[in-house]
Amino acid sequence: MKLNLTTGIIPSLNVSAGLLGFFFVKTWTKFLEKTGWLKQPFTRQENTVIQTCVVASAGISFSGGFGSYIYGMSDVIAKQTSNFNDAQDIKNPQLGWMIGFLFVVSFIGLFSVVPLRKIMIIDFKLTYPSGTATAHLINSFHTPIGAKLAKKQVKTLGKFFTFSFLWGFFQWFFTAGNACGFVNFPTFGLTAYANTFYFDFSATYIGVGMICPHIINVSVLLGAILSWGIMWPIIGTKAGQWYPANLNPSNANGLQGYRIFISVSMILGDGLYNFTKVLSRTVISIYQEIRDKRNAALPVAERDSPASPTPLSYDDERRTKLFLKDQLPTWVALGGYLTISIISIITLPYIFPPLKWYYIIVIYIFSPILAFCNAYGCGLTDWSLGPTYGAIAIFVIGAWAGASQGGVIAGLAACGVLMNIVSTASDLTQDFKTGYLTLASPRSMFVSQVIGTTMGCVISPCVFWIFYKAFTDLGQPGSQYPAPYASVFRSMAMLGVEGFSALPTHCLQLCCGFFFISILINVIRDSLGKKWSQYIPYPMAMAVPFYIGSYFTIDMCVGSLILFVWQKVNRVKADAFGPAVASGLICGDGIWTLPSSILALAGVNPPICMKFLSRSTNTRVDAFLLGS
Amino acid sequence: MKLNLTTGIIPSLNVSAGLLGFFFVKTWTKFLEKTGWLKQPFTRQENTVIQTCVVASAGISFSGGFGSYIYGMSDVIAKQTSNFNDAQDIKNPQLGWMIGFLFVVSFIGLFSVVPLRKIMIIDFKLTYPSGTATAHLINSFHTPIGAKLAKKQVKTLGKFFTFSFLWGFFQWFFTAGNACGFVNFPTFGLTAYANTFYFDFSATYIGVGMICPHIINVSVLLGAILSWGIMWPIIGTKAGQWYPANLNPSNANGLQGYRIFISVSMILGDGLYNFTKVLSRTVISIYQEIRDKRNAALPVAERDSPASPTPLSYDDERRTKLFLKDQLPTWVALGGYLTISIISIITLPYIFPPLKWYYIIVIYIFSPILAFCNAYGCGLTDWSLGPTYGAIAIFVIGAWAGASQGGVIAGLAACGVLMNIVSTASDLTQDFKTGYLTLASPRSMFVSQVIGTTMGCVISPCVFWIFYKAFTDLGQPGSQYPAPYASVFRSMAMLGVEGFSALPTHCLQLCCGFFFISILINVIRDSLGKKWSQYIPYPMAMAVPFYIGSYFTIDMCVGSLILFVWQKVNRVKADAFGPAVASGLICGDGIWTLPSSILALAGVNPPICMKFLSRSTNTRVDAFLLGS
Repeated sequence: MKLNLTTGIIPSLNVSAGLLGFFFVKTWTKFLEKTGWLKQPFTRQENTVIQTCVVASAGISFSGGFGSYIYGMSDVIAKQTSNFNDAQDIKNPQLGWMIGFLFVVSFIGLFSVVPLRKIMIIDFKLTYPSGTATAHLINSFHTPIGAKLAKKQVKTLGKFFTFSFLWGFFQWFFTAGNACGFVNFPTFGLTAYANTFYFDFSATYIGVGMICPHIINVSVLLGAILSWGIMWPIIGTKAGQWYPANLNPSNANGLQGYRIFISVSMILGDGLYNFTKVLSRTVISIYQEIRDKRNAALPVAERDSPASPTPLSYDDERRTKLFLKDQLPTWVALGGYLTISIISIITLPYIFPPLKWYYIIVIYIFSPILAFCNAYGCGLTDWSLGPTYGAIAIFVIGAWAGASQGGVIAGLAACGVLMNIVSTASDLTQDFKTGYLTLASPRSMFVSQVIGTTMGCVISPCVFWIFYKAFTDLGQPGSQYPAPYASVFRSMAMLGVEGFSALPTHCLQLCCGFFFISILINVIRDSLGKKWSQYIPYPMAMAVPFYIGSYFTIDMCVGSLILFVWQKVNRVKADAFGPAVASGLICGDGIWTLPSSILALAGVNPPICMKFLSRSTNTRVDAFLLGS
Repeated sequence: MKLNLTTGIIPSLNVSAGLLGFFFVKTWTKFLEKTGWLKQPFTRQENTVIQTCVVASAGISFSGGFGSYIYGMSDVIAKQTSNFNDAQDIKNPQLGWMIGFLFVVSFIGLFSVVPLRKIMIIDFKLTYPSGTATAHLINSFHTPIGAKLAKKQVKTLGKFFTFSFLWGFFQWFFTAGNACGFVNFPTFGLTAYANTFYFDFSATYIGVGMICPHIINVSVLLGAILSWGIMWPIIGTKAGQWYPANLNPSNANGLQGYRIFISVSMILGDGLYNFTKVLSRTVISIYQEIRDKRNAALPVAERDSPASPTPLSYDDERRTKLFLKDQLPTWVALGGYLTISIISIITLPYIFPPLKWYYIIVIYIFSPILAFCNAYGCGLTDWSLGPTYGAIAIFVIGAWAGASQGGVIAGLAACGVLMNIVSTASDLTQDFKTGYLTLASPRSMFVSQVIGTTMGCVISPCVFWIFYKAFTDLGQPGSQYPAPYASVFRSMAMLGVEGFSALPTHCLQLCCGFFFISILINVIRDSLGKKWSQYIPYPMAMAVPFYIGSYFTIDMCVGSLILFVWQKVNRVKADAFGPAVASGLICGDGIWTLPSSILALAGVNPPICMKFLSRSTNTRVDAFLLGS
């Protein structure tokens, strides 16, 4: 949730979930064994089941849209622009409707996965890189050597967790007032700080930088230099010409508008390219699959290719057998899907009046296809395109509903419905791959996912609620929790409803330019050989700092640099302990937000302000303090 | 010099000098060998000779009294009290007279060492712990395995040197104005900061803490808690009763007076105890030596003890032979001593008019005895009592000259003369021990010491001059360079001249109390067994923060803690690389002061002020900045 509300960049936390699950349950079972109440050992299947429950539960904090579509409906975000401020275009967060909404839309994703998983895992044999990695990790824990390493990793994680938590605590003392504390440290001077270039000592984003591949970190830094280093200062000089001067800095009709829309267009360009690419690969793969099947039905002599399907290894045979044995009947899945569809068609229009029942039917007709596409694409590339599918829903439903019918809310709500289905489809199929490799029963995994989803539907809104109540400037640009994607999603909805006429001068041209640059970069990467393509940045990652600022890119690059140096010094150790260190940093800082928001709710304010003043201002302040 | 002017605590830098000398000359000879100009290898004798030159040169920055008696004569220090502000009681630093003074007083120490060294090293076989440690280090460098380790150590040193230098550079940017920057970081809150308890991020004192034994670090922390944590806050409440309120905080007639004089009395108590102890041990040792000699002259049957002197090992025999072969004739030493005495008796009264020629004759008559005592004591305990002997000179000569005859200046100058002789005697005998163990020729070492002393007499005043010109608040309490011992020495001189009547109310009682506590602590340590005595703090170390403040004790304890944890984790590695890390930290930060003072001289000011304000002040400042 913290990642959601700060930058919206969320690394895969599967490995951390596996690691922590192992650690806690192992400690617990050790304890139980000592008391003599437990006879059975802790198995990797149980580990997998726990992991999938955690992932299902945590995934909702992202797909629930608290940092994107849900908060994009609120009046805080709405007031950042001068249009679409009517009552019908605003829906403020409320614990009740958020939990209800999540229950309705999250479980439908769960049921759509059931028929998919056999196709993806047994028939297509897709890789699912993250799922496979997690499975290997869990498998390794349950060998004697692996358990020893895991213990060390958990110890490392614990150390960095504590460090990161205490660091967050220490920083808190110096944040009395705005622009105070380490998060506003002008590491590279005041001019660089004004352009958001500074190192903000955030343990979280150093950890994120250590988990993300180096090229992602370089991409965000490049994006930051391009936007905050070059473009925004130049566009800033056009104030009064291209857009009215003296606007509130967070007003999307001014410089902020360029930031959001150029960022959106780059994300859309990348999304469109990848959507087309993944879809075409999917279609080709399915075509080949069908052809192979038909071939297989023919006598051997008549087959197309000389390559007969490779016989299954003993491991794979056992895995397949177990995976198919414990299936959930298809009629249960279908029945569940239909039941929940009907419930949501009835209830959702009550929550979001502009979202008519027939929009929902249309979404539910198309969503299984899109869920299939996303699960398949994720299996090939490890890249879930949930937000891109969501954007499509925003544009289509928003335009359909129209401005006068509350199109903004309709679009954002539709986005939520679709994004939940497609995200859940890819995430949970990923988990089934893990289960397949660790010989976990699919039925237990399904039950575990149901439990995890239920938990997520309650926990995530509550956690968001704490943030919402504790930090009153939530969603304000430049604040501690800017929730950048809330603005981005709302802007997309407005664009869908209103068309291009709403953009400031020259913004459309710039947007088009970046849209095509984004596609071009992708084309270049895919046309280059593997040797060079790894050095081409990702437009999606480049677009993130456009709106948020550069500071977190510095953090991420610091994390990347630490890992890089570590890998140079001791590759084996860095690979074994890097993720543990990163997870510790992310989790420690993340958990600190809990006491910090409790302190904020209780009205306990930090005692000291660590302020940064230029020399001339400092002289004036000193004179003022001496005089008063 | 930086250590001199910040806290006056100076760890032994012999090991660093040995390490760096090895590194630079080894690099240089490697380079020469490659060009083919050099045929001979770099030997440990050369290493020793270089080391002794560096130590002789660097030692003068301490015994030269720039942080103590010389700067104590200046008007900056004089103005901190309301009496002794006449022209005859002030002598401001000037490059000319400082260099002249050092030449006269430093070389006399050099000649006084010559006859001592045979007695101390061959006859008494004293340990000289630091000298022996350095010799072992140098010997180890010149074995194949040792050279490899040395290379790694030098690499570590280089890394931490760079880090410490860059850290100093980085900190500089945030120090526009007073009370700005990391050196004023209220790490433990603003109340603790007001009582000088904070971690000031100084790489130097973390390094010093790593070199000093743990008990020294604990002692300074205890002293800090006792004084700044308990005593000063209590005495502070008596303002207006015990001493006039509304005094300038640096005025020695107020709270500052308690700080200085209680600190001085504790130092004197410790000094007196150790002086008595070392002197009595010296006398007993010499008596035994003489008795043994007389015994040796008797026929075997008539000897006192059954133990015949242990025969020399092959190593020791060779060392003794070489050490005695290359002796400097005694007449050269005696002639040199007399010549320089006469020169200084003539010239010193010109530099310091209150220092009459007959005072100097008295000093020179007693100084060989005191030099002998100090060299002997240092050989036994590794503890040079130079400043204590200096304090005796201050009291005796100051009282003799009297207030009307410029007793303050006479006392401080006499202190300088005596302190130089006794410090040089112990430092250089220490070096001769190193030379003895590394088979270096005593004559080359003497020449090297002459060169080192000459260099030191020129370099040290120049370095001090840079500080003096660059930092205009040098010597002000609470500033970056408070030069604490300058005030302490001047206060001692005033006490000697004026007697106890000058002290504020109840100060004499407190001073007496701490004088005896200081002696008592020493008695307790010496009466306990070795097992417990190592946990008894050192009063000398405890007294240091009384006057300076607590911040550097936090740094030192952090250094101590780092080393302690490191030793727990990997004892061998910590012992091998701890000194290298510490030296790197000290040297890097020390060297940074050079560019920093050049920047200050050139009028380049840091751009940013990192300020720490309480929440309420911050609110007012924000309102002020918004309004202006």
